[in-house]
Amino acid sequence: MTPAAEFQALAQRVRNWGRWGADDEIGTLNLITDEVVRGAVAEVRSGRRVPLALPLREDGVQTGVIPGRVNPLHAMTQINQELFGPGGPACSDDVVTMGLQAGTHWDALAHVSYGGRLYNGRPATAVTAHGGAGSSGIDAVRHLVSRGVLLDVARVHGTDRLPGGHAVTPEDLTAAEELAGTRVRAGDVVLVRTGQIRLYLGGDRHGYAYPSPGLSVRTPEWFHARDVAAVADDTLTFEVFPPEIQGLWLPVHALHLVEMGMLQGQNWNLEELSTACGQEGRYAFLLSATPEPFTGGTGAPVAPVAIL
Amino acid sequence: MTPAAEFQALAQRVRNWGRWGADDEIGTLNLITDEVVRGAVAEVRSGRRVPLALPLREDGVQTGVIPGRVNPLHAMTQINQELFGPGGPACSDDVVTMGLQAGTHWDALAHVSYGGRLYNGRPATAVTAHGGAGSSGIDAVRHLVSRGVLLDVARVHGTDRLPGGHAVTPEDLTAAEELAGTRVRAGDVVLVRTGQIRLYLGGDRHGYAYPSPGLSVRTPEWFHARDVAAVADDTLTFEVFPPEIQGLWLPVHALHLVEMGMLQGQNWNLEELSTACGQEGRYAFLLSATPEPFTGGTGAPVAPVAIL
Amino acid sequence: MTPAAEFQALAQRVRNWGRWGADDEIGTLNLITDEVVRGAVAEVRSGRRVPLALPLREDGVQTGVIPGRVNPLHAMTQINQELFGPGGPACSDDVVTMGLQAGTHWDALAHVSYGGRLYNGRPATAVTAHGGAGSSGIDAVRHLVSRGVLLDVARVHGTDRLPGGHAVTPEDLTAAEELAGTRVRAGDVVLVRTGQIRLYLGGDRHGYAYPSPGLSVRTPEWFHARDVAAVADDTLTFEVFPPEIQGLWLPVHALHLVEMGMLQGQNWNLEELSTACGQEGRYAFLLSATPEPFTGGTGAPVAPVAIL
Amino acid sequence: MTPAAEFQALAQRVRNWGRWGADDEIGTLNLITDEVVRGAVAEVRSGRRVPLALPLREDGVQTGVIPGRVNPLHAMTQINQELFGPGGPACSDDVVTMGLQAGTHWDALAHVSYGGRLYNGRPATAVTAHGGAGSSGIDAVRHLVSRGVLLDVARVHGTDRLPGGHAVTPEDLTAAEELAGTRVRAGDVVLVRTGQIRLYLGGDRHGYAYPSPGLSVRTPEWFHARDVAAVADDTLTFEVFPPEIQGLWLPVHALHLVEMGMLQGQNWNLEELSTACGQEGRYAFLLSATPEPFTGGTGAPVAPVAIL
Repeated sequence: MTPAAEFQALAQRVRNWGRWGADDEIGTLNLITDEVVRGAVAEVRSGRRVPLALPLREDGVQTGVIPGRVNPLHAMTQINQELFGPGGPACSDDVVTMGLQAGTHWDALAHVSYGGRLYNGRPATAVTAHGGAGSSGIDAVRHLVSRGVLLDVARVHGTDRLPGGHAVTPEDLTAAEELAGTRVRAGDVVLVRTGQIRLYLGGDRHGYAYPSPGLSVRTPEWFHARDVAAVADDTLTFEVFPPEIQGLWLPVHALHLVEMGMLQGQNWNLEELSTACGQEGRYAFLLSATPEPFTGGTGAPVAPVAIL
Repeated sequence: MTPAAEFQALAQRVRNWGRWGADDEIGTLNLITDEVVRGAVAEVRSGRRVPLALPLREDGVQTGVIPGRVNPLHAMTQINQELFGPGGPACSDDVVTMGLQAGTHWDALAHVSYGGRLYNGRPATAVTAHGGAGSSGIDAVRHLVSRGVLLDVARVHGTDRLPGGHAVTPEDLTAAEELAGTRVRAGDVVLVRTGQIRLYLGGDRHGYAYPSPGLSVRTPEWFHARDVAAVADDTLTFEVFPPEIQGLWLPVHALHLVEMGMLQGQNWNLEELSTACGQEGRYAFLLSATPEPFTGGTGAPVAPVAIL
Repeated sequence: MTPAAEFQALAQRVRNWGRWGADDEIGTLNLITDEVVRGAVAEVRSGRRVPLALPLREDGVQTGVIPGRVNPLHAMTQINQELFGPGGPACSDDVVTMGLQAGTHWDALAHVSYGGRLYNGRPATAVTAHGGAGSSGIDAVRHLVSRGVLLDVARVHGTDRLPGGHAVTPEDLTAAEELAGTRVRAGDVVLVRTGQIRLYLGGDRHGYAYPSPGLSVRTPEWFHARDVAAVADDTLTFEVFPPEIQGLWLPVHALHLVEMGMLQGQNWNLEELSTACGQEGRYAFLLSATPEPFTGGTGAPVAPVAIL
Repeated sequence: MTPAAEFQALAQRVRNWGRWGADDEIGTLNLITDEVVRGAVAEVRSGRRVPLALPLREDGVQTGVIPGRVNPLHAMTQINQELFGPGGPACSDDVVTMGLQAGTHWDALAHVSYGGRLYNGRPATAVTAHGGAGSSGIDAVRHLVSRGVLLDVARVHGTDRLPGGHAVTPEDLTAAEELAGTRVRAGDVVLVRTGQIRLYLGGDRHGYAYPSPGLSVRTPEWFHARDVAAVADDTLTFEVFPPEIQGLWLPVHALHLVEMGMLQGQNWNLEELSTACGQEGRYAFLLSATPEPFTGGTGAPVAPVAIL
């Protein structure tokens, strides 16, 4: 088979269109039931909380290569302003301009279309300048709380950081699952650690962007088999970049967002979590990661917290 | 005593400066210990999740009265753009400009100064255009997960919505605590429901803004006595507006943010939560409400979720 | 004929497609030749300069009715910041977010399409989120300096302000031309004064927006006959609003921008100019009105100046 | 004398405080009288117009080194939207976020303070987050039309571009004035060409920024002696950078903006103008360069046009 034909066959195997009804806009998030949440809560032992978001600031991860996706620009509209006269409380206020996918974020399902189609077969034309994502926008996600499992692939490989261009394979995921000591189950949110974000944290924004380790085109089937609810990692591109197969761009994006209807998270800082999981000897936790509900957003910032 | 002298005496009684060290920037959030979080997790019964954020959109709650605090403006920078050539995945991307305190948000402690001082006695000049809040900014809050308790004051009064100008008193809070069937304890996050947000939800943005029910200047002592970690409500002004005492503007802001070092939340939609608590017959839950970590932010949007 | 058929016939009569070549993107601005500019310069007598732009500020003319067209939001990123250490020069810097057509502006030809077509028959799909106006954007206008003629229709009617809903007719324009004492000629920029902006200047933003006097659907033929280069007026809607013919929305926009390829200006403050022209007894002048060159802009702010 | 003492002596010699009254906010722009404008108009021969602004776009001249001064970010809020129903005119609308001094701009006098003082001795505290520049903001400039004179220092040196770090001296200016064949006179706007912008136009944004040729600390006296109204050049830093005297940062900014009260322009594209002036054998023209009137702006974009 040609790469294109292979990709089409793969797409067929993971496709979830219609699985939760013709009107569904949240895909695999349907797998997070009340029961799943109760199971997630049961993972909490110490009460320790680990934040997973990068600071939102002008020197964020964006380098200007992705047009329009600007780092947060913070500016002041009031500084200690005594709005009601002298001597009273003085207020400070601020505004921000940013790409919705500039920092630690979730892609909405509507972030990508393929062959003119969004998730669940909706027409790509549902995305407009007037209203943004008219289907499967980030505001369709009302809440995102579930069991999180850290698959620490860098640790499995005995390294702080996988090399640029390393494709994380299903075998890597299985090995990390074994390290985690828990089997990934339906409704889980999987966090895949490559260590790549250490480049950004160390000041090398361009090195962080490219070349990047990330998910292989072979991993969506693994997530599909486990019925994972969502996946996030600690890279800018999410999937390995440059791509594994020449001319096949962003295949994992297309499979996750369009075919499976599964949210993807990028630029998550998993370093402190990796340390904490290593210390506590367990890799499953309660994860709270509800995106900011921008109406029509094709993505949104999120401030995820793992509760161990 | 004059109102000003009374206010000063009250300020003295609730002041937490130095309580968590001279360098502390998060105030009463220090009360949320691992143990508190374990207790919060123990409240989860059904696994039901209730989101508390308003949608972020151009017709949000801001009316233009607060200068610079603009509703989210959403615009597109890519729509189904085949970045890597025809036939491949097509991406949509978007940007937003908004006041950090435009929608459902937390005030950072640095949002207000009084007499030239921020929380913990820091100089108000720590807030600059160059870096925003140089002390007690919203980014000092790394995570915010605790036990939440809904004090449904509207329900206590047998109404859907308290009238504009109704000052929520300590007695109201105690009555709502009794309705809740749990005593508020150290490290809890208290959500005070007035029902005022029903005006906005029903299309009356101006009515929502003013006049508003909200917290009385007498309530900070109640929260101080209970050692509450943070308080949020379902109004624009947080405290009753117009104010109870002529010429004494935003006294609750000054007491909470500057004296106690306690985060305040505004524009939280507590309607669905009120229904859920009524249905389940309990008003305590696990609350996950970490603000977006804007460096130097004097506030930040939050997408809170109650997990029942 | 039906209104639609009449409109089509009218469109045929004023259409300039192909007149300046298949690749042309600036339409009637081609009429401003060096000779026209020399003639414009020859109108200068006193050297008096009259600015025609409204201040760009948060309480500008936009009311929120046009989605996304936000008034300028001004915020500070530096205030007296001693970037190079204490004692040296201190800098202040600021940022703005605004709709390109929020204040005193020119519509680019690409601002409107009709039947899937832009000016000169280009496909409407030339406007994208990726690059904005890919054809006939405001950046195609390299400079805009010509003879300006004030047609003071309010003065002709002996009033400060035409009533809301008053359609400015060809007969009005001819009468104002007679008052002006000069015949409008090829390459001129015509400024039509209705006085409507007095409502905004007096604090009534909503009254300014609606109902509005403005150009009648019959005026494009008048401008076409005179070979005018561009037209601006002192209203938000440019043409009379509500429209003259029920169900026929923005016909003047379609005729000017799409068929004739003629720039339109809105929200121009012509009050001081009206006074000056009355005082000097002449209504022609040198007009300098080059739009800010936003790449791909479907419009742009302009700070026009009349030099008398 | 120490460098600091020399600078103070120089500052005294060029200071214009009080010259146009204690309330004046526009400094040397007062020199542009009606008579000066008539003289400027008299320079027009051919009617040729040369635009001097760079395109406003995301890949503009800013590199991220100046915090908060972001290149224009253009995004769409409407694309061919049939606002009034199918079949009618369809509108496209857009928004921009940008630093007011990001592209081709004028510094307002309030852009810089020195020793706690703005131009005319006003306190630096007149600049606030609440209202921006409360004194000598860019909106104080109602119009800016005068005679322009190109001082083509690069041409004088027989080069396309002066080397980075070249300080343009008074002698350079005099030599360029001789080449121009006209003596700079009161109220003129002087455009100093270094050729540095060719680096940006050729794709080297970082090389454009640094190191840069630019005005020497000795030139303000030259401009002061000629009673120039304003000066602009084709560099990012305006003055030579790195500075001529170690530890003396931005001395020309301080002298022009604070002491003289003279507007400065940066990032002006003088390449086409240089060619035109060479072709026509004259370097004086009518210059129209009114800044966008942002209320409280510490600078503003401008779309200058030279009319030859």
